[in-house]
Amino acid sequence: MMNLGGPATLDDVEPFLVRLFLDKEIIQLPFQEVLGKFIATRRAPKVRKLYEAIGGGSPILRWTTAQGEAMCRRLDEMSPETAPHRFYVAFRYTQPFADDALRAMQADGVERAVAFTQYPQWSCSTTGSSLNDLWRAAKRTGLEEAFTWSIIDRWGEHPGFVSAMASTVEDGLEAYPEAERDDVLVMFSAHSLPLSVIDRGDAYPAEIAASVSRVVETIGLKNPWMVTYQSEVGPVRWLGPSTETVIEQLAARGQKNLLVVPIAFTSDHIETLSELDIEYATLAREHGMTGFHRAPALNARPEFLDALADIVHAHLTSGAPYSTQYRTRCPGCVNAACRGVPSRLASAESAACAAADAEAAEAAEVAEREMQNSMTSSAA
Amino acid sequence: MMNLGGPATLDDVEPFLVRLFLDKEIIQLPFQEVLGKFIATRRAPKVRKLYEAIGGGSPILRWTTAQGEAMCRRLDEMSPETAPHRFYVAFRYTQPFADDALRAMQADGVERAVAFTQYPQWSCSTTGSSLNDLWRAAKRTGLEEAFTWSIIDRWGEHPGFVSAMASTVEDGLEAYPEAERDDVLVMFSAHSLPLSVIDRGDAYPAEIAASVSRVVETIGLKNPWMVTYQSEVGPVRWLGPSTETVIEQLAARGQKNLLVVPIAFTSDHIETLSELDIEYATLAREHGMTGFHRAPALNARPEFLDALADIVHAHLTSGAPYSTQYRTRCPGCVNAACRGVPSRLASAESAACAAADAEAAEAAEVAEREMQNSMTSSAA
Repeated sequence: MMNLGGPATLDDVEPFLVRLFLDKEIIQLPFQEVLGKFIATRRAPKVRKLYEAIGGGSPILRWTTAQGEAMCRRLDEMSPETAPHRFYVAFRYTQPFADDALRAMQADGVERAVAFTQYPQWSCSTTGSSLNDLWRAAKRTGLEEAFTWSIIDRWGEHPGFVSAMASTVEDGLEAYPEAERDDVLVMFSAHSLPLSVIDRGDAYPAEIAASVSRVVETIGLKNPWMVTYQSEVGPVRWLGPSTETVIEQLAARGQKNLLVVPIAFTSDHIETLSELDIEYATLAREHGMTGFHRAPALNARPEFLDALADIVHAHLTSGAPYSTQYRTRCPGCVNAACRGVPSRLASAESAACAAADAEAAEAAEVAEREMQNSMTSSAA
Repeated sequence: MMNLGGPATLDDVEPFLVRLFLDKEIIQLPFQEVLGKFIATRRAPKVRKLYEAIGGGSPILRWTTAQGEAMCRRLDEMSPETAPHRFYVAFRYTQPFADDALRAMQADGVERAVAFTQYPQWSCSTTGSSLNDLWRAAKRTGLEEAFTWSIIDRWGEHPGFVSAMASTVEDGLEAYPEAERDDVLVMFSAHSLPLSVIDRGDAYPAEIAASVSRVVETIGLKNPWMVTYQSEVGPVRWLGPSTETVIEQLAARGQKNLLVVPIAFTSDHIETLSELDIEYATLAREHGMTGFHRAPALNARPEFLDALADIVHAHLTSGAPYSTQYRTRCPGCVNAACRGVPSRLASAESAACAAADAEAAEAAEVAEREMQNSMTSSAA
């Protein structure tokens, strides 16, 4: 179960930020080793305060663990022939890391592994970065050949996820007095991305919109709704419309009731508990909104736990090693590591792909050695 | 049937462009009356050549007429109780204008009118501008009270449209030799928008993605696919990824087979016949793509003619005067004319809205008069 992760304690905040700002796959800075560390260290005290305000740390490991346990219990029942099912958490910027997960899997004697992203919609900045790191971790730990893998790389339109998300919206709407309910504007808010990522061809905004469309259809939503993007940071231009700006604009226009739905997160964490519930809620109140609410996160909602098990079960029975979309790198991608697959893939068809990949990788290595040899000899 | 329209003859090209560049609702230029005319006049010879290359003019009126006739024939059969059904074309920047349509409707003794956008997905730059112009045209022609209106403002997820669009994709894929078909990347391309429009909260990208998601699902598409945006022009930043850039990038990577699907257009016109079929096809060939194709436009495809009739029939039987989304202006909207409704609306519920609107408009007028008075008096 792969996710961003979040600092579990206040002392974890700074190392978490440092790792995030050093990840070249999602942030590119000049002199990154120095500047990334500098920015992270400077931001740490402010971010530490935010975590302090939500109870001293991120609840994401607690929620992921609850989700994993419930999912495995369900899978053991649904599919006794593949039991026992176990889950391992691999966070990107805090413990447990992919390395930890792989070592624990080895210790437990795991043979068949599913790399299951906990981001419903694909982005190279989230699932992409986690998968690239997972394959690197397998190399780092010498466990490249230890497991037979398949990948669940996106599930934003899975009916179980959609229906669980729809029920959070319905719960959110029920928080309003009946007389005001029709007047609520429903704002589906997802984490934003720099436009440079969008322009490269990242599928994220299309997948977010597809999830929203399915949720709206499932509810038969009669309220007006929109899609916005939150959490933009730094000097580059990000995908809009900005959740924060939209809240101000709607408030200025006299909109009193606004329900924000975190459509791209499955568990409560800093973006829901702090950014939405404290920062934006305060902003909304200050601008005159009286009915600013946030739909609950999926967390341990039973429909969502069912969905997680269904997603894995459908994946296992399909025999497909990954989605149709996974192997197509963004047209503007400059990271050769993207969309890789491990050498041991779960299906024969993909084993062929992996073999072709391995061949290509070998050819590339040979070419590189030859180039280095020729450089060495010309230097000599 | 409202659409952008296109110059029917080469002599219509310049006046068409002038009207487009003077439309303050979609393009904002300093000294627009002068600069807009200047840009349009300067671009005209180049654009004239493009129309020359596709047969001397846009076929959009011909296609819209064919669609309108077939739609009305079907409606007369489906719903004899509301027959006879007639269609009138209202283009935004060329004849027939909204004024022409309204006068013809009056001459024919029309009572009940449906403002039916021919853009499947909403944007303030397309359907929004057409509707604003329609209500202005009603004022200009003194026909504000002449008809009882309702509005079909978006239909990008209508099953009939989706299934017609899916069949164009299937036709497009069949143009490839069977051995290469699995290797085709399907690129859904829509007209781009300036980011300023996206940041205001225009629903367009979410609606494009929703259409694509439905089409992909209907086909059970096994090919990788993506959403891109075409036709960006001028110095401002537009929504990406850019169709043109993506074609170059994919070709450079060795992608041979690319099927472009015009997801936001219903008829062939300059963006399909010239930009996709000539400009981008040449670009693709020059960069080494051997299998660049474009899925056929809907034009007079029977499934699409059925869909048009279904959309109107469903609208008429629903009794809803417009979609749930229509009345909610973009959060960043600065155009008070947007999302207006005519005084005679088809349902009682909305007549109440219109009355509230009229009241609000009156209040705004009073406020403005008072402000002007106070300014005059302070100036005095």
